[in-house]
Formats: sequence, structure tokens, C-alpha cells
Amino acid sequence: MTEDSGQRHPQTASGADLRRVGIHPDFWYPVARSKDVSRGRTFAAVFAGERIALYRTESGAVFALEDRCAHRQVPLSMGVVEGETLRCCYHAWAYRGNGHISQIPYLPKGVSRPPRGVRAFPVRERYGFVFVFPGDRERAETTPLPELPEFAAPTHKTMTFSRTVRCHYSFMHENLLDMNHQFLHRGVLGRIKPELLGYETGSRFVEARYLFVPGGGKKDRGAGLLSAEGIGGSTSPDVITVRTEYPYQTLQAVPVKDDQPAFSLWVAYVPKDAEQRMNHTFGLLAIARPPVPGLIELAWPFIRRFTERVFAEDRMAVEAEQRAWDEQGEDRNHEVFPLILHVRDVLRANGVPLEGQAVTP
Amino acid sequence: MTEDSGQRHPQTASGADLRRVGIHPDFWYPVARSKDVSRGRTFAAVFAGERIALYRTESGAVFALEDRCAHRQVPLSMGVVEGETLRCCYHAWAYRGNGHISQIPYLPKGVSRPPRGVRAFPVRERYGFVFVFPGDRERAETTPLPELPEFAAPTHKTMTFSRTVRCHYSFMHENLLDMNHQFLHRGVLGRIKPELLGYETGSRFVEARYLFVPGGGKKDRGAGLLSAEGIGGSTSPDVITVRTEYPYQTLQAVPVKDDQPAFSLWVAYVPKDAEQRMNHTFGLLAIARPPVPGLIELAWPFIRRFTERVFAEDRMAVEAEQRAWDEQGEDRNHEVFPLILHVRDVLRANGVPLEGQAVTP
Amino acid sequence: MTEDSGQRHPQTASGADLRRVGIHPDFWYPVARSKDVSRGRTFAAVFAGERIALYRTESGAVFALEDRCAHRQVPLSMGVVEGETLRCCYHAWAYRGNGHISQIPYLPKGVSRPPRGVRAFPVRERYGFVFVFPGDRERAETTPLPELPEFAAPTHKTMTFSRTVRCHYSFMHENLLDMNHQFLHRGVLGRIKPELLGYETGSRFVEARYLFVPGGGKKDRGAGLLSAEGIGGSTSPDVITVRTEYPYQTLQAVPVKDDQPAFSLWVAYVPKDAEQRMNHTFGLLAIARPPVPGLIELAWPFIRRFTERVFAEDRMAVEAEQRAWDEQGEDRNHEVFPLILHVRDVLRANGVPLEGQAVTP
Repeated sequence: MTEDSGQRHPQTASGADLRRVGIHPDFWYPVARSKDVSRGRTFAAVFAGERIALYRTESGAVFALEDRCAHRQVPLSMGVVEGETLRCCYHAWAYRGNGHISQIPYLPKGVSRPPRGVRAFPVRERYGFVFVFPGDRERAETTPLPELPEFAAPTHKTMTFSRTVRCHYSFMHENLLDMNHQFLHRGVLGRIKPELLGYETGSRFVEARYLFVPGGGKKDRGAGLLSAEGIGGSTSPDVITVRTEYPYQTLQAVPVKDDQPAFSLWVAYVPKDAEQRMNHTFGLLAIARPPVPGLIELAWPFIRRFTERVFAEDRMAVEAEQRAWDEQGEDRNHEVFPLILHVRDVLRANGVPLEGQAVTP
Repeated sequence: MTEDSGQRHPQTASGADLRRVGIHPDFWYPVARSKDVSRGRTFAAVFAGERIALYRTESGAVFALEDRCAHRQVPLSMGVVEGETLRCCYHAWAYRGNGHISQIPYLPKGVSRPPRGVRAFPVRERYGFVFVFPGDRERAETTPLPELPEFAAPTHKTMTFSRTVRCHYSFMHENLLDMNHQFLHRGVLGRIKPELLGYETGSRFVEARYLFVPGGGKKDRGAGLLSAEGIGGSTSPDVITVRTEYPYQTLQAVPVKDDQPAFSLWVAYVPKDAEQRMNHTFGLLAIARPPVPGLIELAWPFIRRFTERVFAEDRMAVEAEQRAWDEQGEDRNHEVFPLILHVRDVLRANGVPLEGQAVTP
Repeated sequence: MTEDSGQRHPQTASGADLRRVGIHPDFWYPVARSKDVSRGRTFAAVFAGERIALYRTESGAVFALEDRCAHRQVPLSMGVVEGETLRCCYHAWAYRGNGHISQIPYLPKGVSRPPRGVRAFPVRERYGFVFVFPGDRERAETTPLPELPEFAAPTHKTMTFSRTVRCHYSFMHENLLDMNHQFLHRGVLGRIKPELLGYETGSRFVEARYLFVPGGGKKDRGAGLLSAEGIGGSTSPDVITVRTEYPYQTLQAVPVKDDQPAFSLWVAYVPKDAEQRMNHTFGLLAIARPPVPGLIELAWPFIRRFTERVFAEDRMAVEAEQRAWDEQGEDRNHEVFPLILHVRDVLRANGVPLEGQAVTP
């Protein structure tokens, strides 16, 4: 296990208000669960204020178009899928998956330059999510999707999360990386005193390792089921590794007496509005199947309930942070935990200025 | 039938954003149904952000006053009708129908210049609506109310509409004039391919004529009842004439094998808010009575339901247009249908600048 | 009884819009009822946009802290009381009642200057209310709490009010001082024609005396119970004295044939938002106990209902005034009652400029 002094990077007092830094669009972002986009149907997604109409054709492919008809700006997500095309509900203009107009049913002669179409976004489908590439489409091909081997492995069972949280994505990263916030979950997790074992940081990542030793206090049953043994419920310590690797975040729990993760979490915080004061959190939780067949299925509803409770508490806190920022008009946080200062630098350095807002990195 | 090349007027690229053009106040606008203003009661109406207190006196007359007491600006529509006067609910100041104050019950001596009153608007009542003249009152006398002979004739039965729609009035005109939007109503009207027979336009009007040939598809029962034969349900073609004559709009349906309209529609789109991003649509639908007595009364609920369904679909579309405009901050429509470009010019040329917004016609 | 010509002060046409004048913070303001702050619990209060976390310790003392943790600005009112301290719910920082941080559980070595704490407000508890001093804390000691002897006397029974009203506090003062608004309460109080007996005014107060002679009309039963005789229901006249003594307001009702008040009202209008377009009204109503034991307890629910009805009517009027101000962007009132002009001057002269708004007194 790598030890790290925590002193490698100085505390920075960078100029830009992190809550005014936009997420970088040149990555693959989930914008819907696959099951939200049924065959022959549309789904209204969004990335940082940019509305995106997803639709699944009759052959099963998913396409992502700018969600406004080139004619009168009515959302294409209100439209109708016909075979492989999407037809606007209003005057029936039809679009191909590449955004080109395939038909204007009544186009009069003599109209010299009808619109050519709308923007189409590169799309990929994996791990039960629909990913789009909202940035420079030239870079989509060479930008890999996240590699998440355990989320397809038969050794694991995966749970999917999809929740809107009314805060800037940066609050989410800071929440998960600073495990001193376990006080927030005292009613669900019992009393835990996390000990920081060390951390590493680079231009695009921060990774922290904590030792979680279970303490007293009443604990949610699902918490026990998710503990070191996987399903089983012992109370031995875990090493929890949290990593922001721009723009995603992961968490792994490895029992001290083992070296295989009991569970892994992957999360993306996708801004919804143009000001990025709201995000949609898409998460994947992979849990190692215990030796006893069927046991994980029995435990599943309890684990779901436990994770929902923890998430609800985190949401309450980060949304309170955003409200305070909205009221104060700037970030007045006084952070004392060095690795949080690092992750702020990472998010700041890898982000983009929000439209109409000066960001001096 | 007059044929028209559609080329008489060039496509204009006028400077002003039509959605920032206010409706001209020097016309008679409905602001309530007569039945909304009971004897001895008030009604809070509005025109383009201007609040208007309507009240019906004990003798049955309707008056329209600025809806703020001259004293402390409390709405007079919260007041009490006493005989022919309206008394503010708060400190009991009383007003005559001409807006003059008739009594301040406790007026101390020595107040040199008490307020004289509030603005009164010219009022007319006809066709089941209360019309006011919100503009220059000098012009009220010489400005005629709309002449709608069929709406009083015993040969017709009339249906009244009154609905708030969250969009600029111009979207309403464009919606009805561009009959290529029948795709929107495919579930109610079945598949119809409207054919533009021709159109005419002038400085204050645009009139378009379409041939509607019924196609396949499931159709609402009320649609059949409203079809060419009047009540009866044949499926022969109609000629549909839609006309914007500033600031009103009309639609007539005439069966090809006849020359009497099966039904006529008259509509006014009255802005509610000062920015005119919302309108109240007041409509009159007159349907020719078929020879069989009582038949139209039997059909009435079906026709009502059909028209409500069509209107709900139109509302969905035009409100989506307004939301897109709100988000984009400007009109990015790319119109390809010449007569819609003409009606935009008519609405732009006959409108007024919205307060605080430059309009360069 | 002092008579006053009402002419001592000329009608002023002062420059500042009264609705843009902030209330002066150097007074004791109620921000909660004592019962809202249970032992070991918190309460989220507010004064003019400043959020205040109240908490009652295990020993029963109440403290008032700035409602944002010095760390990440999460409301301390979401926190947990531990003995005499308040612990933030998120990362468990603990605060003393003076606002100093008593513990940061995980504070890393080498953090040179952790935050010292948050602002604490002076607190007093009396008459069933928690008062804070939001202004210059140097002045708290020398600024007395309101002296309200009858509200502790066994000769009286006290009712407490706590209601949010969406208007500037000045509308509340004007409402109560101008008793010509009894028309508003005609349904509850019957017809009353208040006669102004006289008034006095000074740099910090306006006091008006009215003679209330009961007239006809249907009257709420509680109104009778509150009438001149105290509980009993005669219909003899009362002298009503209303006084604004900055920043509070009082009302006393004294039967003409007696010289002891039948009831007394004390009210504070505490701004909630930074723009002070909303206030929380905290009121105390003390009613003289009639000779018959237990009678007042029997009458209590009727008196409560009566006062609620009157208050609801007043709220309707003052909130309409605020909405008119919001729409018009300025005060267009045309006041004709001299003492109301005086109270405006008092409120203007004793207030403070609202942040970002020029006030020229």
C-alpha cells in the first residue's frame, strides 16, 4: 500500500471560483439509462443546458440530436420515430440519425435554402447507460469510454443509480473524497472514524485511501450486507479508496484481510443546466457475489434501500452547499483538508469557463 | 376562387424579432366572457400587463377601470359593487364607471388635492364577450367591433372558448395559418394532407385557402360531426380558408360541393403580461344547424371534446415554441413557407414596440 | 384626553421610497416562539436575509449563531446539539454558543489558520419569544427589551401570533394606524365608523386615538367577546389607541366608561428577506380577565378565530399593496390621511438604506 505524506502539493489559493467552472465537454457522459429509451421512442436528455433528443430506432440503434427542430425550435423529443428517422410532431419534418433532414413534406418550390438539419452527437451504449460526447466530435473517436471490467463480470452484480441533485458537480467530488463526512451518515452507518492512510494526486486525479473501522451505533441492515465480507455481515475493517479521475469518480472497498474489492462504485456527475448548478448523477455499484448462490438476490432490496438512504443524506448536504453559494454569490468555503484543495485544483484545471464568466486558472 | 402565385411578396428578412413586437392597443379586445362578470360582481381582467377591473352594476352595465385604487394601489377588483359604483375593499373609496372618485368616506379637511380617480376603458359587450379598448380612447368610437353576422344568426349555434396559452400571440397566428401542421393532430383528425390552393396578402391581412381531403387513420368522432356536411359525417373534401386580419384571425370550412360554410371560427389572442409572452385566447365557433332539429344539440358535447383536444395539441406546440425562444433569447426559426413570412410581416408592421425594447420595422 | 390638531407636522414629500428603507438592526427582534426551539434542538430563523441558527442546549439556554458552518457553509440549523455545543451535520465541526469552534474532529497537522468560528447574536427570551439583536452587538446591552407589564400579569391572559406576511414592514404599520380601513373587516366586525379623536407624533413615534362606535351589520362572535366589557358582549364605545414606537407597534382598547384597557396588542414586523419585501409578524394579545373564573378560557377559541379572520383580511390587503409595488417598481400611493404621512416619515428617518439602494432621507 502506497503511503503518502499528504504534503506533496501546497495548499493553493487559485483565483477562479470553482463553482463557476464548467465541466469539460470532451468526454463521454451518460445522459440516460438504456431502459429510458425504448424501441421506437424518444427521451429528452440534457447536458449543461444543451437539450438532447435521444431516440431508439426500430432496428434498436440509439441516436442523439439537438433537441430543437431546425424549423420552429419545437423539441424533437416530442416527435415520432418512423423506422430509422425521427419526425417532428409539429409540421412533420423528418431527420436521420446524423441530424440531416430527410424530408419536409410540403416544401414549396422556390425556397432556395431550406435548413440542412440539426447537430447530432456521437452516441455509445454500455453498462446500461446511453453515453453522448457533447464536445468536439473530432475527439470522440479517440476518447475512450470508461473501462469498467467488473461491471460486466459474472462475479459481480450491478446496481444502477440515476438521480438529479441540485448542485454543481464539484460539490459531489468533494463530498465523496472527504470521508470525514461520515458523521452525516451516523444514523445509517453507525459511528465510523475514518482514518486517512494517504493520498496521491496528479494533474488529472486525486486518490485517497481511508481505513474504515466500524464503531458503535445503530446501523442500517444494508450497511452490514455491504461490509467487508461482501454479503455476510462481519464487522472487520475495510480500506476505502476514493478516486477522482477527471471527470469521473470511483470508490472501492477492500477488506483488510482480503485483496479483492467487496464492492466498487463508478459515478459521473452530469451538469443539467447552463449554469451547471444542477447535476444528474449516474452511478454503477458492482458487488462481488458471495459463494452462496442466490444470497445476493435476497440481500438486494436491503442494499438498494441502504444506498438510497446514504445518497439522500449526501444530497441534502451538497444541495445545502449550493444554496449557500447561490445566496452568497461566491465560494466562501474555508477548506482545511489538503486533498480537497487538490481535487479543487484538478477540477479547476481540467474544466472550461462557463459562458459569460471569466475563469482565470 | 382566386388563385395566387404566392410570389407577390418577396421573402423579407426584417430586422425586428417578431416575439418582441407588442400587439397594437387601438383595437377592441375581449378580456372576459360576459358570464364571468355577474351583476353586482367584479372580475380581474388584464391586457398586456395592464390590470383591468371589470364590474357589472346593479342596472347591468359593465365598466372597466384601471385595477388599482388611486389611494394605495390595492386592486379594485377586490372591491365591492354598490349600485352603479365600485368601492375599494380597503379604505372604502368609491368610484364611478368613468373612473372618477365619488367618495372618500373620511377625507380630512385641508387635503388640498386628493386624487381624482383612475383610468377608465371604453367597454362594449357583444357575442358573449366583454370587449375593452386599451389604446387611445379617442379612437374607440371610430374603431368598429368585429362584424360577425353568423354568430348571432339563428341558422348557427355558437361555442365560446376562453383559454390561457403561454406564448406570444404571433405563434398563434402562425399555427393556424400554416395548415401543414395537421400532422400534430393526426390522432384526432386522422391523416390529412392539406393542399395549399392559394393565398392573398395585404398590409393588414393574409388569407390562405387549403383543400382538405380526408385520408385514413383513426379519427375523433367530433371531427366527423364537424366535417363538410355539417352534422352528418360524410368524408368529402372541404376548402378551409384561414385569414389573419389584424389583430384577429378567422377560419371557415366550406364543403367543395356547397358554397355555405359548415362552420366559422373567430379568434382573438389577447396578451396577458407586459412582455406578451402569454396570451388569453378568446374564440367563437359558429356551426351551421343541420336540417334535423335537435341534432346539433346531441352532437354538441362531442364537438366540444374534439375542439378541446385539437386546441390542447396546438397549445402544446406553441408553448414549446415560446419556451425555446425564452431559452435562446431570440427567434431562430427558419421558416420556409412563404405565407408565414407574410403574416410575420403583417404582425410586425401593425404592432408596436414593447416597452424598453427597440423595434426597428 | 389630549387633543391634537393633526396639523403640527406638514405633509412631507420625502425623497426616499419607503419600501426601499430597511428596518434598523439595532433593536431586539423576535425571531421565533420559545416553543419552536425545544431542548436539544435547532430552529432556522432569519432576519432580513441573514440566516440565524437557534439552538437550545441541554441546560435550557438558547443561542443564536450565523446559520452557516465556517467550513462549507452548510446551515448549522441542520446540525446536532451536543450538551452546550452545536455540531454541524456534515463534517462534525462543533461550535460553542459564542460562535467559536470547539472542535474539528479530524483537523490535520500543519493547517496554519483554521477558521475561528461564526458570528453569534445576543439572545434574550421573554414573553414566549426568542429575541435576537441583529445589529451592532456593542449596543445590545444598553438597548432594552420592550417592557410589556400586562403580558406577565395574572390579571391578563395572553395569545401569541406568528405569521409570515409577504410585504414590507411599513405596510403593516400603515395598516394598523389608519383605522379607516375598518371597511375591510365589515364582515367580521360589522359596520364601524371610527372617528379620529387626535394624534401625536415625534421623531420616533406616532400615536393615534380613535373612537369606535359599534354600528349595524353582522358581527363575528369573537368580536363581541373582545368588546368594551372585556368578555361579556355589550356594545358600548371604545377608545382605540394605536402607536408606532419604532420599531414596534401597539394597540389598546379602553371602554369609554372605564379607564382600564380591555385588551392590549404588541406587534413586531420582522423582515425575512434581504430586500425586506416579506415580514414575519410576531404578536402578543393580552386580554383582561373578566370577574367570572374560567369565562375567558371558554371564550378563547372564539377570540382566536376572530383575530385570525381579521388578520387574514389585513394580510390580503397589505400583500396586494406589495404586489402592486413590485409591479410598478415604486411607491405610487397617494396618501391623504396626515398621520400616515407622519408614520412614513418616522419609519424612513429611523430606518437604514437597503444594501445596494440609495436612500436619501
